[in-house]
Amino acid sequence: MQIDPGRMLADLDHLRTIGGQGTGVARRAFSDADVAARAWLAGRMRAAGLEVVVDPCGNLFGLPPGEGPCLLVGSHSDTQPLGGWLDGAWGVACGLELARAALAAGGPRVAVVSFQDEEGRFGRLTGSTVWAGVQPLAVMDAGPDRDGTEDITFGQARARAAEIGPVGEVSPDRFVAFLEPHIEQGPVLDGAGEAVGVVEAIVGSRQWNMRLEGEANHAGTTPMALRRDALQGFVALAAAVNDAFAGMAGPATVWTLGRVVVEPNAPSVVPGAVSFTVQMRDGDVGLLERLAARVLVLAEGVAAARGLVLSAEEGMGVEPVMLDARLRGALEQAAGEVAPGRWRRLPSGALHDASNVAAVLPTAMLFAPSIRGISHNPAEDTRREDLALGLEVLAAAVRRLSNAI
Amino acid sequence: MQIDPGRMLADLDHLRTIGGQGTGVARRAFSDADVAARAWLAGRMRAAGLEVVVDPCGNLFGLPPGEGPCLLVGSHSDTQPLGGWLDGAWGVACGLELARAALAAGGPRVAVVSFQDEEGRFGRLTGSTVWAGVQPLAVMDAGPDRDGTEDITFGQARARAAEIGPVGEVSPDRFVAFLEPHIEQGPVLDGAGEAVGVVEAIVGSRQWNMRLEGEANHAGTTPMALRRDALQGFVALAAAVNDAFAGMAGPATVWTLGRVVVEPNAPSVVPGAVSFTVQMRDGDVGLLERLAARVLVLAEGVAAARGLVLSAEEGMGVEPVMLDARLRGALEQAAGEVAPGRWRRLPSGALHDASNVAAVLPTAMLFAPSIRGISHNPAEDTRREDLALGLEVLAAAVRRLSNAI
Repeated sequence: MQIDPGRMLADLDHLRTIGGQGTGVARRAFSDADVAARAWLAGRMRAAGLEVVVDPCGNLFGLPPGEGPCLLVGSHSDTQPLGGWLDGAWGVACGLELARAALAAGGPRVAVVSFQDEEGRFGRLTGSTVWAGVQPLAVMDAGPDRDGTEDITFGQARARAAEIGPVGEVSPDRFVAFLEPHIEQGPVLDGAGEAVGVVEAIVGSRQWNMRLEGEANHAGTTPMALRRDALQGFVALAAAVNDAFAGMAGPATVWTLGRVVVEPNAPSVVPGAVSFTVQMRDGDVGLLERLAARVLVLAEGVAAARGLVLSAEEGMGVEPVMLDARLRGALEQAAGEVAPGRWRRLPSGALHDASNVAAVLPTAMLFAPSIRGISHNPAEDTRREDLALGLEVLAAAVRRLSNAI
Repeated sequence: MQIDPGRMLADLDHLRTIGGQGTGVARRAFSDADVAARAWLAGRMRAAGLEVVVDPCGNLFGLPPGEGPCLLVGSHSDTQPLGGWLDGAWGVACGLELARAALAAGGPRVAVVSFQDEEGRFGRLTGSTVWAGVQPLAVMDAGPDRDGTEDITFGQARARAAEIGPVGEVSPDRFVAFLEPHIEQGPVLDGAGEAVGVVEAIVGSRQWNMRLEGEANHAGTTPMALRRDALQGFVALAAAVNDAFAGMAGPATVWTLGRVVVEPNAPSVVPGAVSFTVQMRDGDVGLLERLAARVLVLAEGVAAARGLVLSAEEGMGVEPVMLDARLRGALEQAAGEVAPGRWRRLPSGALHDASNVAAVLPTAMLFAPSIRGISHNPAEDTRREDLALGLEVLAAAVRRLSNAI
């Protein structure tokens, strides 16, 4: 099996012209540009001898002819309203090149996929959510256009699937495993000068929506000792969370106090209330639960010590997804061969279609570096040699796995 | 000189009916209710034998007939848009009773004043600002109606001065000293179960308008070590200010972080910028300067340590006003006689007409307790026995001072 990184890069270069806006790309799910890009990809698949099937959600598959265990590789080709050229697209281009090269070489059996609406125009990871059976199609069909650009639901929008190619069902049972190549969308690999990341887990999250209520008072006439200053309570809690997490968090744990609203928010009034979020992310669900519980205990302590009233409500959590150990092992060995000293294991802090597919297939992910960590932005970029090197690692891993396919 | 606390309370009870709304009072400067209240006060002054003069600003004076050194006592009778019944009014009622009693007793010479627009419909402490020569009348005349209820300036509004009484000039040179009785508008006396406060100083303030700028990033994909989180910088600064001030501040120093605006303020985005105020108040100008300088040094340190960019701009400061030592001494001795164990020295955290008058006359202030510290609110209240006791203390102080009047 002989891959051609130049051909993969040429596919990517063409893909960015469909819906291209400056250095960015606008290919919202089921927009004209998205349908055109999928139709173009379908043509490239056919040209390579792959069988094209579009499922009712608009997920586009390029399948090797014949029967037998098959590896699925891909990601998504829809984008944010104005996104970058690599988020999703690089994974699809890698899947296309691997499926093409494998078919030309007479094996192993590799299929390519571009899932639909990963970027959530109509719902969270819409296409892979239905394909992996995480939610029934009828539920996702009700999803409205969250962009507000058209007055349609996902159920109405997906009528355009037939414009992409022949519509049919593609069961996950046809595949033995899923590999999703993706850009990191964070600064770790770029900051370390590394070219490849083997993803250990897609992190989950817990979030508290909290409010500390004290008493708003005249900032001139209220002595410090008689204040019930909600903002000072918030500051004490934020510091206590930092202190506690320093001893509890894992190496990849992140926590964020991203939203803070002070009332009445005037320079000469002692703050009467502060509403804020505390969000934690990690790949270890047990650790997440311990961190979330600790935040609540600390907040209760701050409230009690300062005469504040705490309200705490759990925000929407996401469960972490551990990726398949055998697939990760193959990727790590391949990375060690192809990019020695230039790869690392790391978690994915963002959600991906792999989060859904892991529910039905052994799944793994490979990251390419994002320059300065920028993503969901026209400035998103990766050095071309790193895009090529990632493909080489994937190819080496596929060769290792081919015995089992 | 024989004062009648019941008569002072009866005056106050009547005054609250003019512009009364529920338990509150609406007597905005130069509103119909304010003009009516001043006209009624002028009538009470005349009935007591005092000469009524209204100056061009609408400041209402009740002067003892004849010549000679004279003590001025009073405050203001205008209110917030919907204020309480005692803020200002108690001081005017006390001045009226003292002037009335002194005149009836044949001495000492005591005059009463109700300054105009202390509550800032048209400007800051408008009437006393002009009377004390802090700003020329022409400057204050340009002040618009900040309430937006009428399309007029102070210059236009003060045409109504003639409705109150005969208009004329009343030079500060006529008086030897000014005493302003006022409710505390804070919780100190009430919280301590005390009845009388002798004000040492009217505090001044310094304020920083600061902004810390870092980098907004994805809260899932950005490791803690690579963040430039502006909110964490703010938290560190707030904690550092508390630590530093604990060792620097005086017993009455207050500091407030009252306004905090986070950008972009979303749960899943590392805060990219935080704008906030740091306000300090104290009666000691040197201490204020040291505190303000320390905040800047701490903020620069936090910014440097965390890769944040600091902008710091000085907000409007107010200079502290030390009150006259001899007058304070008289009030303290009187309080010790009349309310032993039930008084204290304290600063005024709010601005008062006394801040202006202190520029031209020896000036002091006496506080009555505010129940639960509530003011600028219809719920503002003081026990009637405390209002009466404050008047007794003032009378005792006037007797002590009368040798010099």
